[in-house]
Amino acid sequence: MLNAIKSAIRTVPDFPKPGIQFKDITPLLSDHKLLRYAVDSLASDWKDAGITKVIGIESRGFILGAMLADTLNVGFVPVRKQGKLPFTTIRETYDLEYGSDSIEMHIDALTEQDVVLIHDDVIATGGTAAATHRLVEFAGATVAGYSFIIDLSFLDGRSKLDSNLPFSTLVRY
Amino acid sequence: MLNAIKSAIRTVPDFPKPGIQFKDITPLLSDHKLLRYAVDSLASDWKDAGITKVIGIESRGFILGAMLADTLNVGFVPVRKQGKLPFTTIRETYDLEYGSDSIEMHIDALTEQDVVLIHDDVIATGGTAAATHRLVEFAGATVAGYSFIIDLSFLDGRSKLDSNLPFSTLVRY
Repeated sequence: MLNAIKSAIRTVPDFPKPGIQFKDITPLLSDHKLLRYAVDSLASDWKDAGITKVIGIESRGFILGAMLADTLNVGFVPVRKQGKLPFTTIRETYDLEYGSDSIEMHIDALTEQDVVLIHDDVIATGGTAAATHRLVEFAGATVAGYSFIIDLSFLDGRSKLDSNLPFSTLVRY
Repeated sequence: MLNAIKSAIRTVPDFPKPGIQFKDITPLLSDHKLLRYAVDSLASDWKDAGITKVIGIESRGFILGAMLADTLNVGFVPVRKQGKLPFTTIRETYDLEYGSDSIEMHIDALTEQDVVLIHDDVIATGGTAAATHRLVEFAGATVAGYSFIIDLSFLDGRSKLDSNLPFSTLVRY
């Protein structure tokens, strides 16, 4: 079944720019059985972790993030690009290859009692996930770990995350 | 329970610009029981409609869109802003108050056999949902109807949609 998931991830060359081999999850999303299996596989690592919220990172992270939260019977919290969330936010900035980018979370999204699973569809250089971790800590909540469909392990994003925390992924390149 | 859903939608004044009363669904998303109830309520209208795919419109539409697809045991198809989808796309343009905007769908996202439920979190002027309907028709598939958490009915977005098709919503303003 994991092979079927890998087969349902399409490599699109030169997107969003020349030289990038983009991993396109839309064929996986359109196959309900495979998608359910992917979510259950990721969720199974977190059944007994005391998770109280799942964060999904904009915008592909919203898709499986919401399904993961639902499967774990907890609420969903969106982390978004700067300027997209309407209420008061906290913000973290992270480096890109050229320049930087910022993400935000609502200031009341988490409490100090929350135990959070951070989800995105792909971990590449890890900058967004690491910035999300800092947002959770700033809110006084606890990060339980990380969950990604795809780990582009040649970019070593995992090295930017807390190495003491569990890390779930389905497909590695 | 519908009153609880309405209470979990926060009005944020003057976002994204002065005079707009933005309807913020993040308190609803963070409450799993309410969110599950909202999804089940929307899904119940479509149990026997022969739906084969749910489209979620970027990016808040991805959240309940994915959960609706899961609840109906069908695949999920993202419709995104121009330039975000990696593979070959079809595109539709719609008018804004000033100027226009475009949305895209992968050219292979639907087949002629697909029966599609279109979901977004909010229907405002209806331009995006109507453009999404055109994308589905261009792909040769069938629109079964529309599903929104919130209908800003004073903007009369529904008048831009096919009045012969069912329209589900949980909260009206």
